Amino acid sequence: MSSPLRLGIAGLGTVGIGVVKIVQKHAGLLARRSGRPVEITAVSARDRMKNRDADLSAFRWETDPMALATAEDVDVFVELIGGDNGIAKDSIEAALRAGKDVVTANKALLAMHGQELAELAESLGRAIRFEAAVAGGIPVIKTMTESLAGNDITRVMGVMNGTCNYILTRMASAGLPYAAVFEEARQLGYLEADPTLDVGGIDAGHKLAILSSIAFGTRVNFDAVEIEGIERVSIDDINRVADMGYRIKLLGVAQMTPRGLEQRMSPCLVPADSPLGQLMGGTNMVVIEGDSVGQIVLRGAGAGEGPTASAVMSDIVEIARDIRLPVFGQPAAMLTDAVPARTAVPAAYYLRIELLDKPGALAKVATVLSDAGISIDRMRQYGHPDGASVPVLIVTDKTTPDAIDFAIEALPGTGVLIGDPVELRIEEV
Amino acid sequence: MSSPLRLGIAGLGTVGIGVVKIVQKHAGLLARRSGRPVEITAVSARDRMKNRDADLSAFRWETDPMALATAEDVDVFVELIGGDNGIAKDSIEAALRAGKDVVTANKALLAMHGQELAELAESLGRAIRFEAAVAGGIPVIKTMTESLAGNDITRVMGVMNGTCNYILTRMASAGLPYAAVFEEARQLGYLEADPTLDVGGIDAGHKLAILSSIAFGTRVNFDAVEIEGIERVSIDDINRVADMGYRIKLLGVAQMTPRGLEQRMSPCLVPADSPLGQLMGGTNMVVIEGDSVGQIVLRGAGAGEGPTASAVMSDIVEIARDIRLPVFGQPAAMLTDAVPARTAVPAAYYLRIELLDKPGALAKVATVLSDAGISIDRMRQYGHPDGASVPVLIVTDKTTPDAIDFAIEALPGTGVLIGDPVELRIEEV
Repeated sequence: MSSPLRLGIAGLGTVGIGVVKIVQKHAGLLARRSGRPVEITAVSARDRMKNRDADLSAFRWETDPMALATAEDVDVFVELIGGDNGIAKDSIEAALRAGKDVVTANKALLAMHGQELAELAESLGRAIRFEAAVAGGIPVIKTMTESLAGNDITRVMGVMNGTCNYILTRMASAGLPYAAVFEEARQLGYLEADPTLDVGGIDAGHKLAILSSIAFGTRVNFDAVEIEGIERVSIDDINRVADMGYRIKLLGVAQMTPRGLEQRMSPCLVPADSPLGQLMGGTNMVVIEGDSVGQIVLRGAGAGEGPTASAVMSDIVEIARDIRLPVFGQPAAMLTDAVPARTAVPAAYYLRIELLDKPGALAKVATVLSDAGISIDRMRQYGHPDGASVPVLIVTDKTTPDAIDFAIEALPGTGVLIGDPVELRIEEV
Repeated sequence: MSSPLRLGIAGLGTVGIGVVKIVQKHAGLLARRSGRPVEITAVSARDRMKNRDADLSAFRWETDPMALATAEDVDVFVELIGGDNGIAKDSIEAALRAGKDVVTANKALLAMHGQELAELAESLGRAIRFEAAVAGGIPVIKTMTESLAGNDITRVMGVMNGTCNYILTRMASAGLPYAAVFEEARQLGYLEADPTLDVGGIDAGHKLAILSSIAFGTRVNFDAVEIEGIERVSIDDINRVADMGYRIKLLGVAQMTPRGLEQRMSPCLVPADSPLGQLMGGTNMVVIEGDSVGQIVLRGAGAGEGPTASAVMSDIVEIARDIRLPVFGQPAAMLTDAVPARTAVPAAYYLRIELLDKPGALAKVATVLSDAGISIDRMRQYGHPDGASVPVLIVTDKTTPDAIDFAIEALPGTGVLIGDPVELRIEEV
């Protein structure tokens, strides 16, 4: 059996400790599967004194991640520090330059600097692997770069932020408004220090940008992702769409169109009985469509110590097996710059409006939709005991986002609406 | 860029032609992803004159698969002939001995001779890859051997025969009896020449035996799989279990227990709203549980030209990338001989009996169950206008297969049953 693969782990949060535990618990299994022992040489974290749920006594402690990244007795630098810049990026670059391979779970860094890092790694003949960066324990990076290598990928979709899915699921099951469930999630420790990373759709947007790059052979371009978070999703809409057989999910969709690469992360309606619609709580799902394979659905825990550490370990075992692939599945130098396209693929839309209870109100709305070229698939008007406001739900036939925007802008001019109209895209899944 | 990888494809059925089409259509993509061109040098099939949906004029025709397997200008022998012995096995062995790598979709061969072939390949430093052998386009082999390499796998389950799932789904949706749908499936060309391979659960059993080997690091042992096909599933049971929130699936389950390795492929009940329960038509699903990752669910097309060829291509790209792993994820010489264990893991069971309409009948049944140590979770007695026979459904609490067998054997002795009791395991998913 070959010489051991020696790991240096920077960052001892949930995931780092999870990796330590697997290496300690499964030494024999890892050696059989890797063809060589996998060992931890040294670790590093901000606070040495913090009480951690693992025995670290056998590992050298490095105060400076840069020293760990370049240590003589480290073969693989495992970056679990996080952050889209600063020490995470610096230490990865230092590790690559020192001839180390890199495993990271850092989606923000890859979404912002993936191209630059991939070029550096490939010029040095080193690997950067990041299975844990997208959808936790779900093997989506490997599936896209390897299992679907013979496919022209046509669309990638996913629910990739467990916190948002938890909030939306909990609102629906408990009938609670967004603010209350947000507060619950905060108290349960489900939210990032900056919660807009989660509920603002940014974390999920990072993940989508990475998947897009692999799927379409393009340079990762996070700035081109159209992002809308879940903050404006109301319990009213959650209840209303359920009446019509839908659920609301924070859904990422990337697809290449004749106008360019569409990437969006936004609250969408999906059929309640579809695999995405059935997804509850913190579970993640990625749906990949290829010209040969058809539709592949991958589902699993999107976060947490075990699942994320499992993904990190799969990358480590690859390197132990001496496998080094291009970072995004094709050489970074060959990745193209996609033209970013605003969403133009037609879809059905859900509209919710509150009408004044007076004759002709609905006719005025129908005229606006008709003027925008939108036809109505289903319409539902609810009772209005107070006599003041009439809730109306509309599911349109397939139409373009432009037509919807036109209608949304024109609707207030009718003078029959109370408040703003709500529109949500119904994604075909 | 390196020299081309040269393929010899033996067998030009649906899958072989699918592979030819992908190589022709995606030459550029495959080269970028593989780091080298992928080319077809020569092909072979039984009938040269058969009209095929692809242009084969650029490839040399070999009449003898053995000649193809050993041809000087072939790097990878792609075996798509099929059969658990004979020319498929002979040509793979010849290819390995001639220094070729092998890609195959042949589940029967691997289930019967996987250990022997893996030992041969590994002794020669060659690869045998077989992603297409299990669950078509779903990347289950790669996920288990690579993505979950850091996990102790605790259970593998799957619906892995699309024909059986089609038949069960169609029976439920159309309310048709087994025989009628079987005949439909035959006319649609969904069945193998020997249909017991499908409906008898043998094909799915082959796949389960392969997954077990990878999951538990054991020598593949198809003979130890407890197999029951779908022939005895009645439309009555399909309708009755639906009433109670279940669906019937031909489900494979493999798990390591203190008594040994349980492998079974049999009709089971799963909750209608679970991912497995939701699976319709020819779609396949594999559920893998690991100590770190938790539960991973993979879903996709289990058969057909595109999906299966996609899986074959992923194996070809791996070899083009110069990646050679142990055939079953760990060196064949290290795989252990598992003690086969009859299913002993407790589960709830569904029982359907027809009782004579006379006082005390149900009490006698309850006594038998109680004597077997089985308690009842739910019971449903249906109306019986004819006064002769009373259909009774029982869902038991968790109990052992032995207890159920004891009860099933004792029930006829009560003298109150019409016909035989039906029992189906309710798998926890």
